Amino acid sequence: MREIGIGIIGGGYMGKAHSVAMSAVGAVFNTRLRPRLEMICATTDTSAEGYRKAYGFARATSDWRHLVADPKIEAVVIASPQETHRAIAEAAFALGKPVFCEKPLGATLEDSRAMVAAAQTSGCVNMVGFNYIRTPASQFARELVVSGEIGAVTWFRGEHTEDFDADGTKPASWRNFGAANGTMGDLAPHMINAALALIGPIARLSADIGTVFANRPGAKGREVNDDIGQFMCRFGNGAMGHLSFSRVATGRKMGYAYEITGTKGAIRFDQEDQNALWLYRADDPEGLRGFRKILTGPEHPDYLPFCQGPGHGTGYQDQIIIEARDFLQAIDTKTTIWPSFHDGMEVNRVIAAAHASALAGVWVDL
Amino acid sequence: MREIGIGIIGGGYMGKAHSVAMSAVGAVFNTRLRPRLEMICATTDTSAEGYRKAYGFARATSDWRHLVADPKIEAVVIASPQETHRAIAEAAFALGKPVFCEKPLGATLEDSRAMVAAAQTSGCVNMVGFNYIRTPASQFARELVVSGEIGAVTWFRGEHTEDFDADGTKPASWRNFGAANGTMGDLAPHMINAALALIGPIARLSADIGTVFANRPGAKGREVNDDIGQFMCRFGNGAMGHLSFSRVATGRKMGYAYEITGTKGAIRFDQEDQNALWLYRADDPEGLRGFRKILTGPEHPDYLPFCQGPGHGTGYQDQIIIEARDFLQAIDTKTTIWPSFHDGMEVNRVIAAAHASALAGVWVDL
Amino acid sequence: MREIGIGIIGGGYMGKAHSVAMSAVGAVFNTRLRPRLEMICATTDTSAEGYRKAYGFARATSDWRHLVADPKIEAVVIASPQETHRAIAEAAFALGKPVFCEKPLGATLEDSRAMVAAAQTSGCVNMVGFNYIRTPASQFARELVVSGEIGAVTWFRGEHTEDFDADGTKPASWRNFGAANGTMGDLAPHMINAALALIGPIARLSADIGTVFANRPGAKGREVNDDIGQFMCRFGNGAMGHLSFSRVATGRKMGYAYEITGTKGAIRFDQEDQNALWLYRADDPEGLRGFRKILTGPEHPDYLPFCQGPGHGTGYQDQIIIEARDFLQAIDTKTTIWPSFHDGMEVNRVIAAAHASALAGVWVDL
Amino acid sequence: MREIGIGIIGGGYMGKAHSVAMSAVGAVFNTRLRPRLEMICATTDTSAEGYRKAYGFARATSDWRHLVADPKIEAVVIASPQETHRAIAEAAFALGKPVFCEKPLGATLEDSRAMVAAAQTSGCVNMVGFNYIRTPASQFARELVVSGEIGAVTWFRGEHTEDFDADGTKPASWRNFGAANGTMGDLAPHMINAALALIGPIARLSADIGTVFANRPGAKGREVNDDIGQFMCRFGNGAMGHLSFSRVATGRKMGYAYEITGTKGAIRFDQEDQNALWLYRADDPEGLRGFRKILTGPEHPDYLPFCQGPGHGTGYQDQIIIEARDFLQAIDTKTTIWPSFHDGMEVNRVIAAAHASALAGVWVDL
Repeated sequence: MREIGIGIIGGGYMGKAHSVAMSAVGAVFNTRLRPRLEMICATTDTSAEGYRKAYGFARATSDWRHLVADPKIEAVVIASPQETHRAIAEAAFALGKPVFCEKPLGATLEDSRAMVAAAQTSGCVNMVGFNYIRTPASQFARELVVSGEIGAVTWFRGEHTEDFDADGTKPASWRNFGAANGTMGDLAPHMINAALALIGPIARLSADIGTVFANRPGAKGREVNDDIGQFMCRFGNGAMGHLSFSRVATGRKMGYAYEITGTKGAIRFDQEDQNALWLYRADDPEGLRGFRKILTGPEHPDYLPFCQGPGHGTGYQDQIIIEARDFLQAIDTKTTIWPSFHDGMEVNRVIAAAHASALAGVWVDL
Repeated sequence: MREIGIGIIGGGYMGKAHSVAMSAVGAVFNTRLRPRLEMICATTDTSAEGYRKAYGFARATSDWRHLVADPKIEAVVIASPQETHRAIAEAAFALGKPVFCEKPLGATLEDSRAMVAAAQTSGCVNMVGFNYIRTPASQFARELVVSGEIGAVTWFRGEHTEDFDADGTKPASWRNFGAANGTMGDLAPHMINAALALIGPIARLSADIGTVFANRPGAKGREVNDDIGQFMCRFGNGAMGHLSFSRVATGRKMGYAYEITGTKGAIRFDQEDQNALWLYRADDPEGLRGFRKILTGPEHPDYLPFCQGPGHGTGYQDQIIIEARDFLQAIDTKTTIWPSFHDGMEVNRVIAAAHASALAGVWVDL
Repeated sequence: MREIGIGIIGGGYMGKAHSVAMSAVGAVFNTRLRPRLEMICATTDTSAEGYRKAYGFARATSDWRHLVADPKIEAVVIASPQETHRAIAEAAFALGKPVFCEKPLGATLEDSRAMVAAAQTSGCVNMVGFNYIRTPASQFARELVVSGEIGAVTWFRGEHTEDFDADGTKPASWRNFGAANGTMGDLAPHMINAALALIGPIARLSADIGTVFANRPGAKGREVNDDIGQFMCRFGNGAMGHLSFSRVATGRKMGYAYEITGTKGAIRFDQEDQNALWLYRADDPEGLRGFRKILTGPEHPDYLPFCQGPGHGTGYQDQIIIEARDFLQAIDTKTTIWPSFHDGMEVNRVIAAAHASALAGVWVDL
Repeated sequence: MREIGIGIIGGGYMGKAHSVAMSAVGAVFNTRLRPRLEMICATTDTSAEGYRKAYGFARATSDWRHLVADPKIEAVVIASPQETHRAIAEAAFALGKPVFCEKPLGATLEDSRAMVAAAQTSGCVNMVGFNYIRTPASQFARELVVSGEIGAVTWFRGEHTEDFDADGTKPASWRNFGAANGTMGDLAPHMINAALALIGPIARLSADIGTVFANRPGAKGREVNDDIGQFMCRFGNGAMGHLSFSRVATGRKMGYAYEITGTKGAIRFDQEDQNALWLYRADDPEGLRGFRKILTGPEHPDYLPFCQGPGHGTGYQDQIIIEARDFLQAIDTKTTIWPSFHDGMEVNRVIAAAHASALAGVWVDL
């Protein structure tokens, strides 16, 4: 057991989540590396100091270069806007420091490629924060697919749908401008990452992307970005697929959901009931077949150890704690962790292909 | 109240369902026209006689022309293979007799067009048998959309998925050969009809159609038809859509399911729980919003009158009885009924467009 | 195949349901006995004639004695108020005619005992109409319990809850007066019958019965009967049980629901989703255990034969058709049918015990 | 913001959960009091030192008296076996230190009474750890009941059922001996606490308690304690109720579930899907009524602040963090917190009454 100095860049929503996770992960998982909340960075000195006190860091700064360079910082967590990801990561890798970066990896595919290259050159541990895939249920789904429990996969349908922009009279905010902030940049990465993790590479796709509310109040003539999108695809293994994304999906709160059909079984999952995985086995006796609702528990991967039995339930914060555990473990053992920057870049590639396909109205090979 | 002589062509699965429905509909709905089971037609005299006795018809025949021409036959129900639909319908219309035809309307788009023309020329009542749309839940969904309860529709996702061919070692049957018998000809019509009924015309689509099990035992070198398909679309009103179809959807038994997203609410339905419609209303007070499970009952359209309260439940046969009621009522009042042959032809048009799109890998306008 | 003349006493809700069932049952199940709707009886000549026309009977009468005595009537269906059940059944048995009687069997336990005695003396086929137990799902549940699939039963919880009287400002009707019309007389019989059928005899019970809305408008000083009740029990096999009943269960429409826990598995059912049975098997591999939702289909008992695959769905009317089939089959083969009058009387015994227990505040042995 | 020295007695399951919660609570809720993990106590020096390192405490001890007396310990968390609760609490109160005690409060009703008395004499903050009631969903249910949203409550049904002892061949452990360790002592307190919190005091009850597996291997003639129990009750407000408890409920993992029926609505909850509350409102327009599934979110009480939107999900550990927040807040503001020791004692009273009722087979007044 030894301490490791953690620096977190960004003190907002995700910065807080990672701060809490770093506080708790040692006790939860009895990790060998024990995070010391060394420094937090925010846009102003005042806000940084506020976050420092609130989250329990030793020091605060408004200069991320200062944080990255500090000798007591042994690992960097990037939770700042995506435009800043590349420069921070490159600086950290140049100093040989491991980096955890919130999704999406880069603001552009070019950024992501540069970040992957920098990570590889440095040999440092690198990881992207696709937290939703880290529920015990989704990790279990992955195990089931890989083990062949449901046979060869023939169909995948995934969605990430929410309704935080479903009210078209809500004034435009920064989220509504710029391709990177659109639904394809904000929500799509999560489910594309899931598709790649659960099924494998996408071979080709045909996409349709749109803007339901193009005239939000306050848009002032600026072009409002995409709030809805979908694509059909074929995976490398031939399976057919469909993914859809929306921030105007009235009634959907955390519609990160998928169904996987195989030749011997099928899986269903919906993050709105994140402690259950539905499994159908075609080799059950006829008359006894049905989708069974499996409550995740100690038998499944990544279940929190103090939740004695199944069904006690994990939540959003627990996903972040799992990420922290895996990041620390990778640093400790100098091993590759999933999803790496490379995995994050693959997600960017799919998004770029989807934009190209939607623009031209054709299928695009990847 | 007066009797009407009914002739049914085809004694198998759907012929039986319509025979039972015609026996029961008068008592159930107290219809003005009361069906008299006058004649049933099957491929051989022996089978026809068997059906006659079993279902309670007065007479039997193996010649549909004989049935259609018989003066005591006042209305014709076509429940024979789709290749026969056109000739029978044309003969009946030529004699001024109303026709109910099982879906899909014609074996080809050309057939369907001819049947619509014949119907229009004759002025006879004509109706297509898309039974699944006639649940109280789906009729209620239609009412909700039309009344504006969920605002402007922005997204529709529908599927008709079953798993009766999910076992790839099952030998090929007649169902596995010929485009008309494929999943796009067999299952897709139901959900396309639903999409048209619930949202309106489709403006353009991009499709992908495939065969998961191309090498079934017994195929003997013949090309196995499609067992899976999907298309993205835009409706005439601009709403984005996605429809998918499969007979290899392991675990799905009656996966006739859809979700409709509107600016003020959303609807969800799954035929596997056909007595419930899920409704979300965006104007409920914040904190009290959620999808509500409405059990269909006397407040909703087409609920069976002897089911006193909600939740008593209707089933497959009840859908057919509703069809019989509407067909009789249209004959009685000489009014147009939905879905008419024209509606059936529109479904054929969409299927033809999907095939063309999948073949060429492009979007197709309708 | 031969005809059998059917007489139905009562033309209201259940009389209609049985009329429709008798019209349809022959075609649906290809029964050997084919019902001929011979005569219907209602309280006045006018109403009887109305029902005759609506349901398709040959003759009508306002005198049930006339119906029972008519030589063309070969089987009697009692769908009249429970006070009339005994006299009608005794008259029919005296003439050697089989009787189907709507639940509850007798208005009192004494009536029921007399009816069982008359049935036994006559040797006639006799059957009680507990329709809800005849869903494929509940028949399948029975099979599973009997076959030992879930091991020894250790716990049963059942309820029959609806909300048709949940509005306390609704004026009192005949339903609100008299013990026989209370919730214990109206709803409890269904679930008690289910408990006896699924688990076996009840050894002792402790009940609590109450009236939530004792002051309905229009009660005019008359005592309003019970609208809610429950009892704990021990079954003969030692299993613990609980049953509850309510007509004031806000939100419940057809809350005929039960859970059965065994040493090797468990079953759950809710009539509001009557086409599904939930089964948990303790011998599934750890990590793969969960309640599976089995959609009833051709593999299960009493699934309607023209519903080709699972999930097509049966409904309320189908339950009545199944009853008609079993009644006809028992007449044809001169065999005992379940539930017989004896089974109906056992339900009355439990209800009487519950009233006694609630009154005295003690456990009562049966 | 100031530090407060925390001492936790017990390092096992719940001791760990509280340690993690105390590490995280400051950052999560930005609490004014910030816990300092000062000392942990376990049965041996070795185990205490192991917990110290694992959870991040400053010091360790095997003597709880030492911990309680230490001047740097400003608040005590009792997570040791229930036999020890009374002595520890009394010692802490004698020194004027606030106490959080795991449920059940005392090993006996007498113990609980003494603990309440000691708490009152001392004037110290005191709180019992009924964690399951602290989900946003259950706190929201409480709000809905109190605000009259569902009208007057007429019926409550609750259960706490699990299946960790459903295998009767599992050898007996300490859990299987002694009344305090039985299902009535272990699981019942959670749901009784919920009933009291949601509905109010229980006026009288009639109970049945049993042992399904009385002959576990390894029991060696010792009497195995209760593994199943239930009681009917009347609440002080007249509402009828039923509670059941089981550790042999095959298939149930976290069956902490309840339904509340009111004159204007109804509520349903099941901890196995802890992020949803089901609400039915009788004043919705007829035809639009149904149970709605409300996903808890920022609009509801006790939702974790970094979970931006509804549906992100909270889990088991989050409940413990909420408890920590409320305990700290009560200390900070010197206010009473719910559930207090008095509330815990009330739960003991109900359990004692249930045992008495089951033994005598009579209703018992409280």
